[in-house]
Amino acid sequence: MREDEAIDELLDAARPAAAAHVLRGPGDDAAALRPPAGQDLVWTVDDCAEGVHFRAGWGWEQAGRRAAAAALSDLAACGATPVGALLALSLPPGFAREDLRALGRGFGAKLAASGCPLVGGNVTRGPRVRLSTSILGAVPAGGGLWRDGAGPGAQLFVSGPLGLARAGLLWLEGGGSPDEPALASAIQALLDPTPRLELGALLRAHPCAVLDLSDGLARDLPRLAKACGCAAEVELARLPAPDAELAMRVEQAPSSLAWLGGDDYELLVAGPPELASLGLAPFGRLVAGPPGEVRGADARGGYDSLG
Amino acid sequence: MREDEAIDELLDAARPAAAAHVLRGPGDDAAALRPPAGQDLVWTVDDCAEGVHFRAGWGWEQAGRRAAAAALSDLAACGATPVGALLALSLPPGFAREDLRALGRGFGAKLAASGCPLVGGNVTRGPRVRLSTSILGAVPAGGGLWRDGAGPGAQLFVSGPLGLARAGLLWLEGGGSPDEPALASAIQALLDPTPRLELGALLRAHPCAVLDLSDGLARDLPRLAKACGCAAEVELARLPAPDAELAMRVEQAPSSLAWLGGDDYELLVAGPPELASLGLAPFGRLVAGPPGEVRGADARGGYDSLG
Repeated sequence: MREDEAIDELLDAARPAAAAHVLRGPGDDAAALRPPAGQDLVWTVDDCAEGVHFRAGWGWEQAGRRAAAAALSDLAACGATPVGALLALSLPPGFAREDLRALGRGFGAKLAASGCPLVGGNVTRGPRVRLSTSILGAVPAGGGLWRDGAGPGAQLFVSGPLGLARAGLLWLEGGGSPDEPALASAIQALLDPTPRLELGALLRAHPCAVLDLSDGLARDLPRLAKACGCAAEVELARLPAPDAELAMRVEQAPSSLAWLGGDDYELLVAGPPELASLGLAPFGRLVAGPPGEVRGADARGGYDSLG
Repeated sequence: MREDEAIDELLDAARPAAAAHVLRGPGDDAAALRPPAGQDLVWTVDDCAEGVHFRAGWGWEQAGRRAAAAALSDLAACGATPVGALLALSLPPGFAREDLRALGRGFGAKLAASGCPLVGGNVTRGPRVRLSTSILGAVPAGGGLWRDGAGPGAQLFVSGPLGLARAGLLWLEGGGSPDEPALASAIQALLDPTPRLELGALLRAHPCAVLDLSDGLARDLPRLAKACGCAAEVELARLPAPDAELAMRVEQAPSSLAWLGGDDYELLVAGPPELASLGLAPFGRLVAGPPGEVRGADARGGYDSLG
């Protein structure tokens, strides 16, 4: 496949939607967008690499879904609405046309589910498949959410169950079947995460600090606490964790899965107690103390992208 | 090196400048920018991969410069002014801290030379070094330049000498010394290209079609002609080519270097004759005919990123 053919296949499979604010989509040196008036831009990039963030055996459509979801999740944590995406794709020599189509299908579907048009990108050769997804979003001027938006006394919440993706990862890496019914929720969490964009937009009405849990609470909580200039007190037993039966299948304690598990793409939020009304689960609070210090759990482990 | 350490080293070396329109720079889930009022956004991504676009032996500072220049060049072709950049960087295990600093230094310096702040990014593990650079720019509303902006009768121009980077590449790949004085202009063109941002902005005052010459005229001219719905007539002898002595050192004809040479990062422009007053070199014209057909040269060869 030549570069131009690969781009055509990818775009045909991804079915990028037209949008009134997209003046120029794929096909020129750059895309052109008319930004919404009176809004700030929120802009992120996220990499999804074969052998690091996913395995070829998990399916190419899933790899595409996962790459789009991980980048959209960064926007969710800022309370932003996506306005467009660029995909920089590396493909190894001889990558099959049908695999490229599956990847484009998954990527395009996940973007479309969030109303995000694919506006351009780049395809180049590489030793392994790698998707670098850049997403642009918008928030009302001054209305973005950041990881430093809370102080001592703020309650700590997570937006949903943690540790499922880690359980799914341990199961598949241990040779388990992706079709095992007892692991279905874990495998779904790993292969098809849902960015919490609606929740992020709702959180804009509240004073709070927000961060998405891509690297696991053990690594991400110290980051949020440090940005807020606080220490954090946690009660691990209150974290929404996988049930005991599922955890047993991967030989882990539920609270350990919840604390260490990366790739959850739930939101970590520090803010006032009334956030519980949005369905958030409280598990601790920010307190005066050495910035980034965590009390009640061991803040080691978690995911390091260079580890 | 852990991920957080690598990011700190990179940012320290790249010295990202503050800018009034950057509300949030590196360090959160996403960057935040306040876009210039009444302007359209122009947005691109470009990959620079070790073993495909550069060699480790060329120096890491040069790899950083080249990655930034290639992405900025896409904006130049649209007549846009850069407002910010994101870098998604892949690093192999054990990549040396001093090499990372050199890479960051080159990348940051090239951005700074174009007034473009580095606002965020991502570092992850990969088999080889890879820089995926996403750049956002702005043009007055409706004022962007595109590859379909001309029709039959338009003159064809290039903005400067072609084929130097190809000569430099052939020289280095053939084992030649990077310090050979006779090849200095060629090696400079390869390792430290200059994006034509000022020229792009000047071209906005004229009706024209523009494209940056990253893949070589042999591949890029048919693309522009096709987008304009025209054929192209060219006179190879009029192309500004490397001098005969330099070309002889790499055993190529000057016009062949100019026609096939990729990585020139000059602009290809189709428009009215008065564009010559901007210092552009005329070499042919668009004519009625099968879209994308080229007369007067063989439109094969050139650079394919999956080739």
